[in-house]
Amino acid sequence: VNPTVIRKSDTGSVRSVHRRAVDGDRNALARLLTVIESEPATASPAVWSNTGDAQIIGITGPAGAGKSTLTSALLTQLRGKDLPVAVLAVDPSSPYTGGAVLGDRLRMARHTLDPGVFMRSISARGHHGGLAASVPLAIRALESAGFAYVLIETVGVGQAEIDIVKFADTVVVVLAPGWGDGVQAMKAGLLEIADILVVNKADRPGLAQTTAELRALHTQVRGSVDHSPVSIVETVATDDKGLPELLDALSAHRDVLLQASGALLRERRGRAAAEHIRFALGVEMERRRDAILDSPAFAHEVTAVTERKTDPWTAALRLIITRSPEV
Amino acid sequence: VNPTVIRKSDTGSVRSVHRRAVDGDRNALARLLTVIESEPATASPAVWSNTGDAQIIGITGPAGAGKSTLTSALLTQLRGKDLPVAVLAVDPSSPYTGGAVLGDRLRMARHTLDPGVFMRSISARGHHGGLAASVPLAIRALESAGFAYVLIETVGVGQAEIDIVKFADTVVVVLAPGWGDGVQAMKAGLLEIADILVVNKADRPGLAQTTAELRALHTQVRGSVDHSPVSIVETVATDDKGLPELLDALSAHRDVLLQASGALLRERRGRAAAEHIRFALGVEMERRRDAILDSPAFAHEVTAVTERKTDPWTAALRLIITRSPEV
Repeated sequence: VNPTVIRKSDTGSVRSVHRRAVDGDRNALARLLTVIESEPATASPAVWSNTGDAQIIGITGPAGAGKSTLTSALLTQLRGKDLPVAVLAVDPSSPYTGGAVLGDRLRMARHTLDPGVFMRSISARGHHGGLAASVPLAIRALESAGFAYVLIETVGVGQAEIDIVKFADTVVVVLAPGWGDGVQAMKAGLLEIADILVVNKADRPGLAQTTAELRALHTQVRGSVDHSPVSIVETVATDDKGLPELLDALSAHRDVLLQASGALLRERRGRAAAEHIRFALGVEMERRRDAILDSPAFAHEVTAVTERKTDPWTAALRLIITRSPEV
Repeated sequence: VNPTVIRKSDTGSVRSVHRRAVDGDRNALARLLTVIESEPATASPAVWSNTGDAQIIGITGPAGAGKSTLTSALLTQLRGKDLPVAVLAVDPSSPYTGGAVLGDRLRMARHTLDPGVFMRSISARGHHGGLAASVPLAIRALESAGFAYVLIETVGVGQAEIDIVKFADTVVVVLAPGWGDGVQAMKAGLLEIADILVVNKADRPGLAQTTAELRALHTQVRGSVDHSPVSIVETVATDDKGLPELLDALSAHRDVLLQASGALLRERRGRAAAEHIRFALGVEMERRRDAILDSPAFAHEVTAVTERKTDPWTAALRLIITRSPEV
């Protein structure tokens, strides 16, 4: 078997690639992520067979808040602990995928030669137009490959991005002073999902007001949803200002997650698992529908309906029921 | 059994309501359309059991072209033949439904007392956010109730509207001189679906140019798709000008459909049947997915995935396969 080729549905090959990825082979990891993107169902059992102990950190926020600069600065801070870090950049609006994008960014370029950093862009556009069912699996693959931190950075702040950061253990929302008002962030659903609010570009005017407003709004929004406390951290990512404080906030949130034998972490991962299965169900059912539409049985029913020998809904039900469930 | 109540999935009651609708009971017909909107799968066998012989006329076009005035004027013309006419107004962007909307329109008001005219608005927003799977069934219900003409008028010109008029035998696209240019209509996919192009408001400047441009573009677009000829009719619907010519064009298109033992009509209805089954499949599969997500088995799989006893994709496949197909 040519090791550079993974045949469709060849779970054996995927297992071997995954084993090498877990053993630290970064090329194998990159290949595994490619398989995950195109055939998540095939990759899933292998990926799930290994546990890990990463803190999954989701980073989101509106354009212009300095998200990507902050991600890069955070990467530098985390690497100061000499633990391996993975960065997954997700752009739900782009069908583009591959490993190059992140490393091409000026800010990220300095990390490309660091063997303790793994960077990857992933398309969040699923095969059927929906949200990428592969994103949560990619996160687990990185965790199982032994990274201590997995950063997920989203490009925009739409519903798709919010759905993605829900797979994180700790959600960091990056805003800037004067970015609209806190009310905008609240409307966008950002405050509801934030565990840590970063007010980046803290050297800009309006800082105190923005911070105060965010604190008030967050308490209001989150109070009823979840009882984990929020930290608001003010940063100037271009100068690494506030980054140690952000590191502390991340560590503190990790402690909260692990309290009471990890009750909150388990709750979050349970929610992520439910969402993951829901994604997978959607993809698998679409695949079944497409298979039905391509089948001779479908063409047969069309003729029967046209000739009024049956009606369209009875035909549809028959196609679903008689379809072998294994296909 | 209280005749005003139709229990869920009571195909017997639906059959009896349908029988009365076919016998000319307009209240029964209105009730049947309500059942179709909420439970198309239940209504479908009864509706499909009766044939009919209507010309299904789809009317679409951009806002401002005078679609609804034209529909009303056409209604008057068609009624001149003393044959019953049904009008179905479809607004894919509105969840609003009911019989009142059409009759409330000033132009349509004069038809409300005519017993040979049946008007109905129908929501095209399906239960699962998709296109209304009930629209094609409503069309067939009106046909089986003995109408000679079924006019389907759409409100906008998005993809949803284009999908709806595809259920028509004859598609009338209404434009106005100076409505952008013909190129706009081409880009919107309107020329591709038009069997008859109406240039309404023909008393406005730019008529000759618009008509010439449309003729050239239509030949270009349609030439490769379908060989049925296009008619371009110039109308001033507010004065009934050009309406007899439109009637002739509709009749001529009907003749084309019936040529060669109705080969083209059969082809169109075959395509409509395929689309109808596709709609029904989508709705039924979504219903199944929702049922799975609500089931105790789903909760069980979530726990198993969270505890890493299984993986999300294996869990999803198991939920689909073990799900009783009848539910």
